Amino acid sequence: MVEHTAHAFDVDLQELARKIAEMGGLVEKQIVDAIEALVKHDIALAKRIIVADDLVDARQREIEERAVVAIARRQPMAVDLREIVGALRISNDLERIGDLAENIAKRTILTDELPSSEVILQLDRMVKLVLVQLRRVLHSYAQHDLAEALDVWRRDAEIDAMNSSIFRELLTYMMENPRNITFCTHLLFCAKNVERMGDHATNIAETVYYIVQGHPLSDERPKADITSKRMLPSSV
Amino acid sequence: MVEHTAHAFDVDLQELARKIAEMGGLVEKQIVDAIEALVKHDIALAKRIIVADDLVDARQREIEERAVVAIARRQPMAVDLREIVGALRISNDLERIGDLAENIAKRTILTDELPSSEVILQLDRMVKLVLVQLRRVLHSYAQHDLAEALDVWRRDAEIDAMNSSIFRELLTYMMENPRNITFCTHLLFCAKNVERMGDHATNIAETVYYIVQGHPLSDERPKADITSKRMLPSSV
Repeated sequence: MVEHTAHAFDVDLQELARKIAEMGGLVEKQIVDAIEALVKHDIALAKRIIVADDLVDARQREIEERAVVAIARRQPMAVDLREIVGALRISNDLERIGDLAENIAKRTILTDELPSSEVILQLDRMVKLVLVQLRRVLHSYAQHDLAEALDVWRRDAEIDAMNSSIFRELLTYMMENPRNITFCTHLLFCAKNVERMGDHATNIAETVYYIVQGHPLSDERPKADITSKRMLPSSV
Repeated sequence: MVEHTAHAFDVDLQELARKIAEMGGLVEKQIVDAIEALVKHDIALAKRIIVADDLVDARQREIEERAVVAIARRQPMAVDLREIVGALRISNDLERIGDLAENIAKRTILTDELPSSEVILQLDRMVKLVLVQLRRVLHSYAQHDLAEALDVWRRDAEIDAMNSSIFRELLTYMMENPRNITFCTHLLFCAKNVERMGDHATNIAETVYYIVQGHPLSDERPKADITSKRMLPSSV
């Protein structure tokens, strides 16, 4: 009976992991579409992204409910509980990334066509890096690959640096010509949204660490590093 | 035995509700401190907010772990599972509000003293309204008061309107004088952070509705209303 329950719980966990991989794929597509809609000022695509965000939200609720039912039915302990808590956290981060993509889509609808500029290319590069981070962290979750998760966690600094560079560039454009202010303001928020997607990929890396190691990653971080990281430009 | 378990579960739920009320109080204080640090350019206070955010995060993890353990031990069904899922969601929204307050504190450290302006008074009024919304929604959760939750949910539109008004005003300042651009950009992000706090209060109202009614609030919303609401300026 115990074996049977343990096996049934493994099936539940595999099913949860599969649902998270699917949700991850959907969220990746939302990011790709959001940046395309922004750059090409494709209002129809932006509207489809907004509608599709409901699917992302529904996936998250489904994962949440399955996780809770799995706990109630199987009464798992220790490591298995960590797997469930981890699945809840990851689906939550994915849902938030989806909201950020939707946000860019909403902003696309509200604004006029953007003038082409170097800064949009920079934003595009930043999005590509976020996509790599997201794919790798989802892979590290599927494989319980701690080294890959830690690598994703460390590389978030590159995304933050790109955002700071875009931020400075946009401020310069605005100061040069007041007519740039409106579109630059929108791009500031879009870049911030992309940077926050990177933060959520980092959160997922921390969750993978917690699942595998059984304690939070922050316990491992050297104190000096925490302080410097924590005082960096806001990352939420 | 069943009665005993049911009673033990009630105790678990009361304990969770108490922890959420406490966490809510802590988050309220973070908001009050964040706006004070911003307006008075109080760097020491801003640093204390950043440190205190770790406490908020720790509360959230504690609620998450207690909730999961309560499910595993008591195997609750239906309405009781909703209470647990609801507690998880609410602690999550509170944690996000805490992050937004921390964000304003980080920005305070990064920026020079703000010139006094009408727009800061407006931001202060917006924060006060968010605090009222947060207190009321936490009260509606504690009392399972559906009418109060729905009232909070409806009043979020006022906060969104205040944000739009601040947004327009800041754009005007920037266009009038390029020297205003840097501080106005920071205030744009601060106002956005406050608006998002309001969104999380609204999410909590939706969770209270879900706990009490057993289905999502969005099912109730008239279709036309969804469409218009969804196309409003981004709220994430």
